[in-house]
Amino acid sequence: MDHPDIQKLIESLETDLPDNESSVEEARAEDIAQAISSLDGNTRLMILSLLDDERAAEVVATTDEHTQESLARSLGVDRLVRLLNEMDPDDAADLLALAPKKSQPAVLEGLEDDLSRSVSVLGQYRPDTAGGIMTTDVVAVPSDALARDGLDHVGQVEQPEVIGTVFVTDAAGTLVGSVSLRDLLRARPKSVMADLMETDVIAVSAEEDQEEAARLVDHYGLTSIPVVDAAGRLRGLITADDVIDVLEEEASEDMMRLAGTGVTHPVAESLSTRLLARAPWLTVTLAGTFFAGILLEFVEKTWFSLDAVLVTAGVPMATTFKMLMFYIPMIGGMAGNVGTQSSTIMIRGFATGEVDPRHPARMLWGEMALALMIGVLAGLVVGGLVTVTHPAHPNLGIIVGAALPCAILCAALAGTLIPFACHAAKVDPAYAGGPFLLTVNDLAAYIIYFWVAIQLTGLLGPPTVS
Amino acid sequence: MDHPDIQKLIESLETDLPDNESSVEEARAEDIAQAISSLDGNTRLMILSLLDDERAAEVVATTDEHTQESLARSLGVDRLVRLLNEMDPDDAADLLALAPKKSQPAVLEGLEDDLSRSVSVLGQYRPDTAGGIMTTDVVAVPSDALARDGLDHVGQVEQPEVIGTVFVTDAAGTLVGSVSLRDLLRARPKSVMADLMETDVIAVSAEEDQEEAARLVDHYGLTSIPVVDAAGRLRGLITADDVIDVLEEEASEDMMRLAGTGVTHPVAESLSTRLLARAPWLTVTLAGTFFAGILLEFVEKTWFSLDAVLVTAGVPMATTFKMLMFYIPMIGGMAGNVGTQSSTIMIRGFATGEVDPRHPARMLWGEMALALMIGVLAGLVVGGLVTVTHPAHPNLGIIVGAALPCAILCAALAGTLIPFACHAAKVDPAYAGGPFLLTVNDLAAYIIYFWVAIQLTGLLGPPTVS
Repeated sequence: MDHPDIQKLIESLETDLPDNESSVEEARAEDIAQAISSLDGNTRLMILSLLDDERAAEVVATTDEHTQESLARSLGVDRLVRLLNEMDPDDAADLLALAPKKSQPAVLEGLEDDLSRSVSVLGQYRPDTAGGIMTTDVVAVPSDALARDGLDHVGQVEQPEVIGTVFVTDAAGTLVGSVSLRDLLRARPKSVMADLMETDVIAVSAEEDQEEAARLVDHYGLTSIPVVDAAGRLRGLITADDVIDVLEEEASEDMMRLAGTGVTHPVAESLSTRLLARAPWLTVTLAGTFFAGILLEFVEKTWFSLDAVLVTAGVPMATTFKMLMFYIPMIGGMAGNVGTQSSTIMIRGFATGEVDPRHPARMLWGEMALALMIGVLAGLVVGGLVTVTHPAHPNLGIIVGAALPCAILCAALAGTLIPFACHAAKVDPAYAGGPFLLTVNDLAAYIIYFWVAIQLTGLLGPPTVS
Repeated sequence: MDHPDIQKLIESLETDLPDNESSVEEARAEDIAQAISSLDGNTRLMILSLLDDERAAEVVATTDEHTQESLARSLGVDRLVRLLNEMDPDDAADLLALAPKKSQPAVLEGLEDDLSRSVSVLGQYRPDTAGGIMTTDVVAVPSDALARDGLDHVGQVEQPEVIGTVFVTDAAGTLVGSVSLRDLLRARPKSVMADLMETDVIAVSAEEDQEEAARLVDHYGLTSIPVVDAAGRLRGLITADDVIDVLEEEASEDMMRLAGTGVTHPVAESLSTRLLARAPWLTVTLAGTFFAGILLEFVEKTWFSLDAVLVTAGVPMATTFKMLMFYIPMIGGMAGNVGTQSSTIMIRGFATGEVDPRHPARMLWGEMALALMIGVLAGLVVGGLVTVTHPAHPNLGIIVGAALPCAILCAALAGTLIPFACHAAKVDPAYAGGPFLLTVNDLAAYIIYFWVAIQLTGLLGPPTVS
């Protein structure tokens, strides 16, 4: 690779670093990890190849799952082994699970013995269980050990974040108590652990859902929680940083599901994945509101019979208006749905750091492209359905089918830009993203709908054949 | 108090404890804290009076802010002083800030000297800043101290959760580095801190927003973060359990704002508070959708003139239908809004533990009472407005005003019960709470609306005066 190329690469990366970190050399691994997540696969690999194994391992371990997956598939077995050997067992196990199935045995073979054993243990548990997120690096001593042995063990751990508590096990490895490091330091060196320990330890079973483990830590105000197997034997520890990740993930998941985006981290996904993920929820809205139109038409025919009057009077524009009203729920519902999706993605993205509030343009094109695809698809489907089901109103399908993408595009524009505007104005975007945005999008959608209808009836003539 | 009363009290409390904690004596403070939050003020005071100061202090420190506020106002100065003296400085400062302004000096006077000093320091910072959530219990030693001095300091802390890291300060108290306890234990006892420390410490300014501090911990995968003042002097520490609370609070706040509930913990608030909090957002929806009706009417008059035909033909039911269609956005919008509020409260409540998924009835009555109040208020306002603005359609206001509370009640019922049903069926309630629920509520609202309209026109005659 030429020197200017490297220079350009690094410059492009550095624009994404926080203001106080001006160069890749100075940057923290977590910031490089975030910066490379928005680069394409090849550039990402080139950046990593510039870092030594230890630093590259830190970067890979802290980047998001989506980026990890793409890296695990594109890094060779050799490089993967070297990186894994620099990682904590839990991070190594996660990354290995993302590597192609057929190269996993070769990678496992290459790992250092200790790590290989830990990774095998962790590999037994599903990734979304307590066992799947724990580290095997936990400080445990027998109950007849002395306080000074406990302190010796603490000095031997790999990960400094695991050492607030020393756990006590019996001969079978069963968790029987815990001693805070504070109490261990206060104790006389020859005190026996069994005399120092608290026996009332909150632990979680390795098979338990990771959210249950995180909830225990949250509810009891802990900073870590020990993980035990079915027999009560101590198998590992879940630390606060993992709990934070689980709780943040859970909140994102709930918010995105409420908005119907279909995926939890839309910003990290490709447009086609995002379109497919949203499709079922948009289809529910489309089908439901289309059915609402059929319902309204049925109610009108059965109890109110406007048709008799309008057809007798022979006023096609009046009939047009009546027909247009039946699609008001659909136009409002689809615009509201897409607008809420965009605003929820921005609002959650600001909170988690996935969306940079200083760069609206980066998000705008993606959201608009999605809205255009959704709008055109929905417009074609609905336009076709209306045309087929209403042969007496030949232009009606064209009007509804043309207005739908316009209303959806406008809703996505408002849903994307209003949160950025709120952020710039120091107003919480969540206030603007809720009922306020829905109402604005409803109003805008109706105006667009009738504007399109008036233009098209002017151009094509009223849709009703008298 | 009679013995049977105490017994009854304790029994009512014990039904709310987790299954594995069968008595108040065995229960953990956090579980008693959660159980008393749903009791009335007097019962709560009686339960606390049964506990000794140390245990009562634990319970009060871990209960929610709403319960703390009511306790801080109703406990006497003496008891408050005794409880605060048992608490960590950050918890004590929080509780003191909730006590009545005029008794605060007397309480502060009664505190032990150390605690009083810490509480005064913490009282300088706004509660939502890094300084407001930090603890002053932080392990700091001068840079020329020896490793064994560092370990001595660790043995002296009050809160065992603060001791993962020992911080190093210079003569002016400025934070200059940190040593993990692991490295301290590995070091020779006579090593100098300045030689052991890492100088690249991530810290947060005390005036910074608490969410910024939490984001730093999340982003860099930390388990705690030191807090410094404007001059860079070490003032305190934010531990992972506080970070978890801040992030959970932030997620709840965003979700509730997106739903327009107006408060972050609706379950803990009184019905009148919840009604007032929702009012602005419901008013936005009501005003916006009412305006949508005016808009639709204007569009019809200006470009489509159904009226000319209908009035000429003299068919009151046809005119009725036309008029009814103008309020479709309002009926759908209000039902959707209230339904989404209920479902968001349940879904977030399941996640945070504020709502018990085994007891739908506890939530149902509150949500239905709120929906009834909202529905009747909205019905009266809209019914009145429609009657005044449409003198030619005297019954129209009655129809819209009667249908609105019915549609809103139905939406609250679905919004509350569907999440419980999903939970029982082991489907994620967040899937059902989004676009699916909105669409169901739209359809139900339209059916109710026209059913009410048909019944009332049958009873009162068509609303239009020919």
